[in-house]
Amino acid sequence: MIRKLQAEDRTQLINIINEIKIFSTEEKNIAVELIDEALLYQGEDNYNIFVIVDNEKIVGYHCIGKRSLTDGVYDLYWIVVKESEQGKQIGTKLLNHAEEFVRMNNGRWLLAETSSIESYDKTRNFYFRNNYSVVAQINDFYQLGNNLIVFGKYIKI
Amino acid sequence: MIRKLQAEDRTQLINIINEIKIFSTEEKNIAVELIDEALLYQGEDNYNIFVIVDNEKIVGYHCIGKRSLTDGVYDLYWIVVKESEQGKQIGTKLLNHAEEFVRMNNGRWLLAETSSIESYDKTRNFYFRNNYSVVAQINDFYQLGNNLIVFGKYIKI
Repeated sequence: MIRKLQAEDRTQLINIINEIKIFSTEEKNIAVELIDEALLYQGEDNYNIFVIVDNEKIVGYHCIGKRSLTDGVYDLYWIVVKESEQGKQIGTKLLNHAEEFVRMNNGRWLLAETSSIESYDKTRNFYFRNNYSVVAQINDFYQLGNNLIVFGKYIKI
Repeated sequence: MIRKLQAEDRTQLINIINEIKIFSTEEKNIAVELIDEALLYQGEDNYNIFVIVDNEKIVGYHCIGKRSLTDGVYDLYWIVVKESEQGKQIGTKLLNHAEEFVRMNNGRWLLAETSSIESYDKTRNFYFRNNYSVVAQINDFYQLGNNLIVFGKYIKI
């Protein structure tokens, strides 16, 4: 079951974030900031968080928002699956839900920024498998030798 | 003379923004929002505004900030020259200053997002002339038929 974030989910989400092995401390901090922003500005367009629940426990979430100045471009800021629940197609369910969210809002693009480093191999393969294309690449982005790879999918209605 | 934004500059900047012919209402609103954010969070990294002054009047400004999660990527959010002062190399001075700002902060990249539509022809030519490359292009971005063009320059130390 996928539903909107509620205030009482915060602790579970923070635990999920803190367990993710590939996230740096800065990434963890920003992920938590976005949860707080989403709770603070509920109903606004910027940050929408949806959690996926299995057996009354949250096993993952995604955070999606419309890019300002555009009339139909959505950024998938985070898509996170609990470390112990990976490999069970939960990410695919969340991604499909994010695409459906774009469709429901008459959007066209879903974009996801990721990194070229080895710890993100699985993430990149996940987007390729789900028919995303590389729409931008910038070398030495996050750090020297850590490039930006932006995946995008043109969402058909 | 190029200097940091001060609170008393706000009215002049808003007048400059409102006069710019190619800005949409939404672009104007966001430009003004960033001025208020820059004044509110002075000293922080996100939005730094510098104004260029000629004869005690502000004739343009740029707004630059570090991209979160990166250790050296800067976005040039706005570079604006007063409508009546265009064609006098003020934009080039502001751009050089922005590049110098990146260098001073040990940054590597300066990125500027712009649009494919005709009203931005001059802007795109401005970046090409100043040795920027297209680092990303996404069709149907701002609107259908209005594409994103991201210019970037790798800043040498």
